[in-house]
Amino acid sequence: MLAMVALFLLTCSMTFSVTILGSGAAIPMLHRNPSAQVVNVHEKLFLFDCAEGTQLQLRKNRIKLQKIGHIFISHLHGDHYYGLMGLITTLHLLGRTAELHVYAHEPLEKLILMNLDASQTVLRYPLVFHAIDPSAGEMVFSSKIATVTTIPLNHNFPVSGFIIRERKSPPNIRKEFLEGRELSNLDYRRIKAGADYIDPEGKVHANEDITRAPMPARAYAYCSDTAYHEPVIPLVSGVDLLYHEATFMEDRAADAAAKFHSTAIQAATIAKKAGVKRLLLGHYSARYRDLEALLAEARTVFPDTLLAQDGLVIEL
Amino acid sequence: MLAMVALFLLTCSMTFSVTILGSGAAIPMLHRNPSAQVVNVHEKLFLFDCAEGTQLQLRKNRIKLQKIGHIFISHLHGDHYYGLMGLITTLHLLGRTAELHVYAHEPLEKLILMNLDASQTVLRYPLVFHAIDPSAGEMVFSSKIATVTTIPLNHNFPVSGFIIRERKSPPNIRKEFLEGRELSNLDYRRIKAGADYIDPEGKVHANEDITRAPMPARAYAYCSDTAYHEPVIPLVSGVDLLYHEATFMEDRAADAAAKFHSTAIQAATIAKKAGVKRLLLGHYSARYRDLEALLAEARTVFPDTLLAQDGLVIEL
Repeated sequence: MLAMVALFLLTCSMTFSVTILGSGAAIPMLHRNPSAQVVNVHEKLFLFDCAEGTQLQLRKNRIKLQKIGHIFISHLHGDHYYGLMGLITTLHLLGRTAELHVYAHEPLEKLILMNLDASQTVLRYPLVFHAIDPSAGEMVFSSKIATVTTIPLNHNFPVSGFIIRERKSPPNIRKEFLEGRELSNLDYRRIKAGADYIDPEGKVHANEDITRAPMPARAYAYCSDTAYHEPVIPLVSGVDLLYHEATFMEDRAADAAAKFHSTAIQAATIAKKAGVKRLLLGHYSARYRDLEALLAEARTVFPDTLLAQDGLVIEL
Repeated sequence: MLAMVALFLLTCSMTFSVTILGSGAAIPMLHRNPSAQVVNVHEKLFLFDCAEGTQLQLRKNRIKLQKIGHIFISHLHGDHYYGLMGLITTLHLLGRTAELHVYAHEPLEKLILMNLDASQTVLRYPLVFHAIDPSAGEMVFSSKIATVTTIPLNHNFPVSGFIIRERKSPPNIRKEFLEGRELSNLDYRRIKAGADYIDPEGKVHANEDITRAPMPARAYAYCSDTAYHEPVIPLVSGVDLLYHEATFMEDRAADAAAKFHSTAIQAATIAKKAGVKRLLLGHYSARYRDLEALLAEARTVFPDTLLAQDGLVIEL
């Protein structure tokens, strides 16, 4: 039983997943909602963008609304934030008391306050707004488990992408070493912090002999709306998963450039040059129903490419 | 063929229907969206309230978004307007050029403008905002086919209900009279305006002999969020269909009173006292999954009661 609990805790504590709530561009479609994603890091939920319908998409994907603690809005085009007021209000109506943190460009704070004022709503929970600077690439969130850093993107409008990085885990104590010993909590903490262990007989066990290296810290980068933009490359270098918008196929490269969006091949080129592990495409123009051809184009440049589709869950 | 076209035009011109896009209360559910309804009067579309998700509900019910000319928002609680910005933006992105008229309480205009400003959007079409006075019962819209009048409701917040009334049709010219005659357009118009007809032989045909009374003008009343409120009764007297919120069942009458909502029996009592033809219930609390018991309660007072459910179309 204890072993099962430990296994469960171990599994939980290691979660790093992305759930796609909306994979489409500006216009909501019945089969494809606009941008929203939930990132689960060690069972803490982070929402990236919040288009109209996000709260229903959360329900549909059986994600507990109240577990969301931090919401990051990449920019103030409606297909990235028109679901925010609905979610804020529903969390209030369902009795939330925990803080909710919203990270976005400055004008959104006033919009939130005006909407609350229009409905004479005094939220039951603290809503903490963090204004982010669209011109900077800087850490905007930091906790024991993860950090979030902004990525200045290149759209016809200020847009911030985000990288969420898991904190480096401490080393794991080897099972063989633990067998037959009773370590105090203090011993555990010391060893995990890198100390050697002196056993009751006075024997010194070198830290490197009794531990093994932890899983490498994982990272996910979210580049929502952007033209092909090489300054992104060093910022997302080597991430485990890069989400990069791919609004158009290559025959519409001129459209993409004119609208400051990317083609699938441009997204794949960024992925290749940045040496990321996997690429996730999204923000498809409503003109593309079947996405296989768009995927095929990207894979000619970067084979480890996936299609974001509403409801898809990707484990990192 | 001509007869078919005429029949089609006749059928179209006589449409008066209500399509329920959302029948729930404040919290959107997978099976029940918050408040929004489309009223079709002679193929002109009027939207009553516009909760989050309304544009997708319009698509789901195969209603052409661009056919909506007038949007009436009953009040500024989010479950009645959080879908408005999304709809306004989508109409723009789809290339609308026709005017869109929005009727709502005054603070909504500023919210719309601030959202457009935040996204640096200059709409391709004229959006005309009409501020309505929540304390008045007054005509806010008038055209050749219909009028819309507000109904001051009794909520813990300013709320306007709406009555949409078809204009009285002109009399119909009897088929028997038309057979074998060739009337000019002017003759048609004169007879429909009540004039007698003098035929080429000089014979006078009295208007009442050659016409028959038109269909009586129909009316639909929409009472969105309100406590039991008898001043509504004379205003909705005799309408063909009364939508009245029924958030709770009778065992929660105290809840209803405290929250300025109604029970199903209270809605039915208003319908009975106002002598309406049919009653349509809606705005159900999320606690009620199965609505049959709620309907049964209303029918003890007013048998001609229907349940609003998402996707229901009611012909008047």
